[in-house]
Amino acid sequence: MNKNAIGIFDSGLGGLTILQALRRTLPHEDLIYFGDSANVPYGSKSKQTVTRFSLAIAHFLESQHVKMIIVACNTASALALPELRRQCRVPVLGVIEPGAQCAAQSTHNNKIAVLGTEATVKSNAYAKAIRKRLPQARITQQACPLFVPLVEENWAHAPATRLIAQTYLAPVLRSKADTLILGCTHYPVLKSVIAGIVGPRVKLVDSAETVAQATRCFLTQHHQAETAGRGKLTVYASDDPARFKRLAGCLLADRIGTVHLKKLNV
Amino acid sequence: MNKNAIGIFDSGLGGLTILQALRRTLPHEDLIYFGDSANVPYGSKSKQTVTRFSLAIAHFLESQHVKMIIVACNTASALALPELRRQCRVPVLGVIEPGAQCAAQSTHNNKIAVLGTEATVKSNAYAKAIRKRLPQARITQQACPLFVPLVEENWAHAPATRLIAQTYLAPVLRSKADTLILGCTHYPVLKSVIAGIVGPRVKLVDSAETVAQATRCFLTQHHQAETAGRGKLTVYASDDPARFKRLAGCLLADRIGTVHLKKLNV
Repeated sequence: MNKNAIGIFDSGLGGLTILQALRRTLPHEDLIYFGDSANVPYGSKSKQTVTRFSLAIAHFLESQHVKMIIVACNTASALALPELRRQCRVPVLGVIEPGAQCAAQSTHNNKIAVLGTEATVKSNAYAKAIRKRLPQARITQQACPLFVPLVEENWAHAPATRLIAQTYLAPVLRSKADTLILGCTHYPVLKSVIAGIVGPRVKLVDSAETVAQATRCFLTQHHQAETAGRGKLTVYASDDPARFKRLAGCLLADRIGTVHLKKLNV
Repeated sequence: MNKNAIGIFDSGLGGLTILQALRRTLPHEDLIYFGDSANVPYGSKSKQTVTRFSLAIAHFLESQHVKMIIVACNTASALALPELRRQCRVPVLGVIEPGAQCAAQSTHNNKIAVLGTEATVKSNAYAKAIRKRLPQARITQQACPLFVPLVEENWAHAPATRLIAQTYLAPVLRSKADTLILGCTHYPVLKSVIAGIVGPRVKLVDSAETVAQATRCFLTQHHQAETAGRGKLTVYASDDPARFKRLAGCLLADRIGTVHLKKLNV
């Protein structure tokens, strides 16, 4: 048993979907969430820049004595995970591997589609992780760069969002994939729009649930799980905590309490 | 006469619309453009954060011996101009004052509308600058946070962009404004979409032209204008120069040559 908190970070608000799943799956764990709202978005930025931002956050989380770090951001998981693992003293879990595993297990026709940011798609991280488990998989990847601002601006249910989603999803429909990975932590907010376009026969893989399960497995295996008491949540943002809290309230059912300002040195 | 270059900066690509106007109006001047692509966008970020980014860029431009700095970003002009003027040794020109002056001169019914980022609108910088010149002005301000990602992702001519623009422009139409300030350097890329919605009776004030004229006036008055030779252009981006160059090519008719990488210490 390890009473230290779990550290979680994302470029902004998207990782809150993972935070919510973690709170339900691991109610006894203390959680520290960091949203990098000063540098959001990551998805259109380079490996070097995303790695620099991610390392600064990980070092801050380590200074808070976390027992592990969850990279609750697909772009940072795709681009910065090896460097984070090299430089951090605590275990670092990304979101790509659990999502890829879930998709490989759920497909029946071996056709899997992945939606992600420009950087995630370019990195091929999902395709590599899926092929390790299912070498015969046929994978279609689609970058959806406007989904993050649409979610961050609370436009999830606007007609324009549906129109943009139809454009992005056209190659996915053509591919006949039966499994679609929502490869960005913002995308679960658009789940109903996406499901409405691809139809009920396509299984949507939402990283939030799979990451929460993977975290529970990891902690149990390593005898690090907290088994009693109600976990505490602490939230940091690198810019404008009031705005962060307000938008989090629009996106999530859960309340996140006070948001603290923490500037990064990058 | 002063042979040093003019420094220009923006959060990303939008300021290139001003760069283009400057090259036409002041063909003899050397220009150094800085696009902060590692930290784009500024429009949803706080005054403190935008000021921190802006100062880091201004200090870099001063290290390149520029004779003046043009803040080719409405958000940075609205939030960071006083601090930039306090800390810089060279004159600093923003984009708000020239745009406000042009709008105040062109309105016939004293009803002026302003489109801008969330931060620009919240700052009230345009409203204050217009009222200094036209105290009886009735001003409608509208934040258009999705316009920047739509431009940066090259979606200017998509049907979804028109739908989003119709939503943003509804209060402008209701206000009966005869003059509309495009209060963000990205928005001139959407000029035809916006003009199509507001119609030919509404004059669009595009900061690019007005800023270029204001710069010429300033240099002439201070005997700092370069009068001969063909000006040289140097472009820096704080992230992924190849991506910056590619997107610049989609947005602008002009070629911008090599883009150099310059990381900021912020």
